[in-house]
Amino acid sequence: MATKMLLTIATGNASYDTKAAQLKSRLAEQIPTSLRLPASILSNLPLDVTGIPASCGFLSPEELAITELDATAICEKIAAGKLTAVETVTAFGKRAAIAQQLSCCLVDFFLDEGIAQAKELDEYFRREGKVIGPLHGLPISIKDHIPIKGRWASGGFLANVEVSKEDCDMTSILRRLGAVFYVKTNQPQTIMHLESHSVYGRTLNPHNTNLTPGGSSGGESALLALKGSPLGVGTDGGGSIRNPCSNCGLYGIRPTTSTMPTRGYLFYQPGCDAVLTSTGPMCQSARDMNLFISVVRSAQPFLLDPSMIPMPWSVPSPSSLWGASTGRKLRVGVMVHDGVVMPHPPMLRALELAKSKLAASDEVEVIDFKPYQHDIGYDIIRELYFEDGGNAIRMMLKEGGENSLPLTDWVILPSHTKDHDAAGMWALRYRKEVFRKAYSDHWLASGCDVLLLAPFPGCANMHDTARYWAYTAIWNLLDYPGVVFPTGIKVDPSIDVLHPQDEVMSPADAYNRSIYDADAMIGAPINLQLIARRFGDEMLLAAQEVVERIIKA
Amino acid sequence: MATKMLLTIATGNASYDTKAAQLKSRLAEQIPTSLRLPASILSNLPLDVTGIPASCGFLSPEELAITELDATAICEKIAAGKLTAVETVTAFGKRAAIAQQLSCCLVDFFLDEGIAQAKELDEYFRREGKVIGPLHGLPISIKDHIPIKGRWASGGFLANVEVSKEDCDMTSILRRLGAVFYVKTNQPQTIMHLESHSVYGRTLNPHNTNLTPGGSSGGESALLALKGSPLGVGTDGGGSIRNPCSNCGLYGIRPTTSTMPTRGYLFYQPGCDAVLTSTGPMCQSARDMNLFISVVRSAQPFLLDPSMIPMPWSVPSPSSLWGASTGRKLRVGVMVHDGVVMPHPPMLRALELAKSKLAASDEVEVIDFKPYQHDIGYDIIRELYFEDGGNAIRMMLKEGGENSLPLTDWVILPSHTKDHDAAGMWALRYRKEVFRKAYSDHWLASGCDVLLLAPFPGCANMHDTARYWAYTAIWNLLDYPGVVFPTGIKVDPSIDVLHPQDEVMSPADAYNRSIYDADAMIGAPINLQLIARRFGDEMLLAAQEVVERIIKA
Repeated sequence: MATKMLLTIATGNASYDTKAAQLKSRLAEQIPTSLRLPASILSNLPLDVTGIPASCGFLSPEELAITELDATAICEKIAAGKLTAVETVTAFGKRAAIAQQLSCCLVDFFLDEGIAQAKELDEYFRREGKVIGPLHGLPISIKDHIPIKGRWASGGFLANVEVSKEDCDMTSILRRLGAVFYVKTNQPQTIMHLESHSVYGRTLNPHNTNLTPGGSSGGESALLALKGSPLGVGTDGGGSIRNPCSNCGLYGIRPTTSTMPTRGYLFYQPGCDAVLTSTGPMCQSARDMNLFISVVRSAQPFLLDPSMIPMPWSVPSPSSLWGASTGRKLRVGVMVHDGVVMPHPPMLRALELAKSKLAASDEVEVIDFKPYQHDIGYDIIRELYFEDGGNAIRMMLKEGGENSLPLTDWVILPSHTKDHDAAGMWALRYRKEVFRKAYSDHWLASGCDVLLLAPFPGCANMHDTARYWAYTAIWNLLDYPGVVFPTGIKVDPSIDVLHPQDEVMSPADAYNRSIYDADAMIGAPINLQLIARRFGDEMLLAAQEVVERIIKA
Repeated sequence: MATKMLLTIATGNASYDTKAAQLKSRLAEQIPTSLRLPASILSNLPLDVTGIPASCGFLSPEELAITELDATAICEKIAAGKLTAVETVTAFGKRAAIAQQLSCCLVDFFLDEGIAQAKELDEYFRREGKVIGPLHGLPISIKDHIPIKGRWASGGFLANVEVSKEDCDMTSILRRLGAVFYVKTNQPQTIMHLESHSVYGRTLNPHNTNLTPGGSSGGESALLALKGSPLGVGTDGGGSIRNPCSNCGLYGIRPTTSTMPTRGYLFYQPGCDAVLTSTGPMCQSARDMNLFISVVRSAQPFLLDPSMIPMPWSVPSPSSLWGASTGRKLRVGVMVHDGVVMPHPPMLRALELAKSKLAASDEVEVIDFKPYQHDIGYDIIRELYFEDGGNAIRMMLKEGGENSLPLTDWVILPSHTKDHDAAGMWALRYRKEVFRKAYSDHWLASGCDVLLLAPFPGCANMHDTARYWAYTAIWNLLDYPGVVFPTGIKVDPSIDVLHPQDEVMSPADAYNRSIYDADAMIGAPINLQLIARRFGDEMLLAAQEVVERIIKA
């Protein structure tokens, strides 16, 4: 594995070290000998390791071709009998084994089990002449804290690492729809960093291993960047799908909460409902986001989980909403910065490019969107995350003999969290409601359908430096759905130069400037984020299609 | 006013007494001299006062006829130019003034304002030749804690009595739809009793003034029972729409929470989101429930309140769901008792009658529904109501110099509530989620579409005795929509005899037996309750139509 991985490591007491070593060696042994990269490759890795899976020679040309497909294409080919489930999961499994050695993206590898599942599906297909469900044979990677029966899982700490007794609702539904499981992916201690550093190690960004793949679904994003999976399931309570997808040049959506199944996901604050987590796909194409959500919703997950909202799902065609036949343009708000932290130069470059292309299009009306108190909103959500002042985290750390990582200390920083009583919690939640109402009015007054902005005040950053989540987390506070997508451009040190700034907007802004290093960030993909109002998920995907097409034209 | 009203009264310190006297005398003076009932009537009131509005001679035959109409008929007649808004609100206003003197149902009377609003509507109709909205000219009564700009309101205590600066979302929407406001109605101290005893006095049940009209929307139910309003807006966090509608022989629905606007309603625990309140219509006909919900939803209240869920609304015709064309019967679960408290004889009589008629119908399949841990569910929701152990209540009482009423002491009883910290609140909310999941599975396994049961373990009860809310509150815990409707039968002491019981199911059961007195309860209407799963509101109304028709056939 690349030496950068050894920058810092998760540590603990003697008992922790023993157990951590066992988990790591179990994982290392799960990678078949035949798929272990030779020292000649591992000792000479480039910063950008995304080419290794193709160049290492472990996959046949046919297998490489399979792993270049998106989920929609895979499902179509399998349903048409042009591809088997076994050859599909084999190809992705091999590539995932390589990805693990390049980026430390996995926590569990069980290709044998995936192949066995795939065999049954292939037999069903041969016997019945049809697929078992819309995801028949699709390999899907799953984030660590999302249980799959019989596989390893954790709620963000060594103390809650376990072998799952049952599928959670999501994996049970995906299995029923025909999906094949073969890997689980890394997440950070607490599952509350935009970084992915756990007892299993630190996940690296395959586009530039200096950088983090983001988090908390960073095992997924690294795996997907290496095409070791066509589609992964992540969770997002503050940016944990959008941030890693952004950092790795992928597509991802955080749906409105309670519209997708999350029951059974592991966490260490059961019953905390102040900020609900959302769950959704991380993938290689825009259409895969729609595929995933539509088939999961069609499985009526609300029958399994009464906390869910049975909203119908149907993404309208853009032309039914905007354009000649409707006499209405898509109104895209553009927010260059949030009034608190200025994005880094590559992100500003992408935003300006997007803005000018959108402004030049006659399909779109561009609106300058003024942010509304993002500093206050970020304060509110940080406090809401840990209404107990971080006691549950400290308890989990203690129980596992696990040392607190720097970003863990940062998220439960006393100035931002308190151990509340009932009155304090109600007052805090009331602040949330007031903020949501004010932002809703602000948005309606702006007149925009969707809002285009950076997903983070920069592209993928150096390890352990991601502290300012407000570009994503503000939308978790508001529960507005958000999608991220690649612009196709990357960080270029020759043009993405940090210029002296007239005014530092905030301490967080000063910090954000201090972590920029164009040379070190070379090649990082640049994604943008598109937001809609709460429950506007379907319209959001329609708008994303239009915006991406125009930006990339 | 009837002497029964003086049983017990709300009391406090000298400052409280002064302010309470001012509020009461303000209200008394708001009733025009011309509408004050003479001592000859007031000193000779029968137990059942529902005949007085017609017999007292204050309303013309035309006015009486108007007050016999339901909301749907009123809207139709006004839209057809057959009735004016002014004559409509005048008729209901006069009758409301009488109702107040018979039942102490109001907290504010402002017929002049209603007439002025109605005049503008009539002028609009003459000028434009059309209605301003679907509720054009409909008088609507409003519960005390639901603000109307410029009118009196309170959050359940003297300390939060105020004149509202603004309409809340609900009244703003209703006003926009054409509704006319003229009265606000009484609710109990804390707004958390199935009783309506406040600083304004104790509301009586017009069908039998020995009895409570229920609560907490008991001012509404008493007013509606006297036809001083065609439709009222209540709130229901534990039964506060369904209980008073039941006690007074009315129709009422508690919709699934977050589907109807509640923003701006007064309460004393802002930010407490453990059990959300629901809001809905209390009315004279089943079709009025649908009218009210459909027009309020069509006004897109979620644009005003981002905490709302923008669910579509369309009640299907029963024949599209069940019957010959579908090959499917309506499956009605029947639950005779909840395993904790046995309903009183009249309620059991109504349930048995309903069950036998439903069983005889070929439209319906009757399913014996077994209750699932209603005792535990009731414990959970009681604790959830007051996660601060009642501190906010004690603070409000202290601030107003107000003495705690017996049912207030009861709801915050230390054995049932605790002052929780964050960990305690999370644990409690987690118990709620686990219970909801278990109940959902239990319901699905039963196979029923809707569940028929008592709305309370008895009909209207004697004042200050309603302690066991679980027949309604369990559905608040689950957030299942519930509708109540009159069976058309009433308490008859000659047949509704309490028989010796083989087994007392619980202390609550023993208590419930002890509060039964058929002679004292004579003439109390008997309603039944129909429940659907969360978000099944539209199907519920379709099923209610079928069930009521069969029961009354």
